[in-house]
Amino acid sequence: MSLALDPAAQDLLFREARTANTFTDEPVTDEQVQAIYDLVKYGPTAFNQSPLRITLVRSPEARERLVAHMAEGNQAKTKAAPLVAILSADNEFHDELPALLPHFPQAKDMFFAERPVREQSALLNAALQAAYFIVGVRAAGLAAGPMTGLDFAGVQKEFLDDDHTPLMVVNIGKPGEDAWFPRSPRLAFDEVVTTV
Amino acid sequence: MSLALDPAAQDLLFREARTANTFTDEPVTDEQVQAIYDLVKYGPTAFNQSPLRITLVRSPEARERLVAHMAEGNQAKTKAAPLVAILSADNEFHDELPALLPHFPQAKDMFFAERPVREQSALLNAALQAAYFIVGVRAAGLAAGPMTGLDFAGVQKEFLDDDHTPLMVVNIGKPGEDAWFPRSPRLAFDEVVTTV
Repeated sequence: MSLALDPAAQDLLFREARTANTFTDEPVTDEQVQAIYDLVKYGPTAFNQSPLRITLVRSPEARERLVAHMAEGNQAKTKAAPLVAILSADNEFHDELPALLPHFPQAKDMFFAERPVREQSALLNAALQAAYFIVGVRAAGLAAGPMTGLDFAGVQKEFLDDDHTPLMVVNIGKPGEDAWFPRSPRLAFDEVVTTV
Repeated sequence: MSLALDPAAQDLLFREARTANTFTDEPVTDEQVQAIYDLVKYGPTAFNQSPLRITLVRSPEARERLVAHMAEGNQAKTKAAPLVAILSADNEFHDELPALLPHFPQAKDMFFAERPVREQSALLNAALQAAYFIVGVRAAGLAAGPMTGLDFAGVQKEFLDDDHTPLMVVNIGKPGEDAWFPRSPRLAFDEVVTTV
């Protein structure tokens, strides 16, 4: 069974792409991030709510503050990566909803008037967008190093506000020497998929 | 700024791909689902925990039971789609962790001994995998129709168990007539990305 997606693209995005733990010094430019965003912004979210927000940590001072909140095993690579991004969910995404969903502006008040409902929806949909973003980083010919080993409350306090829930931090760049472990096994189809 | 991913693949996965609301009658085979899974299983998750589980709703009787739990606006398309999949997070993914992470089997007990920690991690990582799955459906030349308008507790009770949290239901097939609304606007780069 062959896919419609050509094999080179399959390799670039999934089969050959790997989570990088080391990077070269080559910078990641704003233009590259813009190109990634301009691709992955089209990935679907519920009601087109698009709750993902991206904080690029570029200044050495900000990088230092971020590294202090990373788990010890993630500090060296977070310090060394050409670019580091904090991905978060905007729990007040509903303010943008009338603009994002012009054919159904009443969705804002019908479905998202309550903060706990928004938080739950923002978390799921920003996570979908985080995955699109990782795929987009790979589409740009770069490696992503997504990490959840960090002090989330600390990162939120240091870089975000009460309306933004951090999901993960992603190192971005060209893979360096010994950039990854051997690929770990995946679950077999029958361990994941059942039919009713 | 051009991406490494070729333009045809960009169109197939993001730019031209759309959430479908109608489908042709052409079946979606198990071989197609296998090909999708064999691609997207390589998408990264924390500790390679791979918590996504997929329930293919194939029998007419099961389809009927599922439709009854969908929001009214989602019932007709869930009834008509060639294939419908329930995506869920396995909160007991840690049982598989020593096999999935052979170089660090102690992660199971070091990080995932507590059920609330597992639930939170499974939710985030299964959501990432749900996005990879949507991208994979598109990579197979099919359209996905992901939906969260449904009775989650009802779907869990009807099709899953206490260890599996449903995330969404996805209609899958070739797009039919008037399969989608016009594309809704996306947020501008500067509304999503900030630099510190």
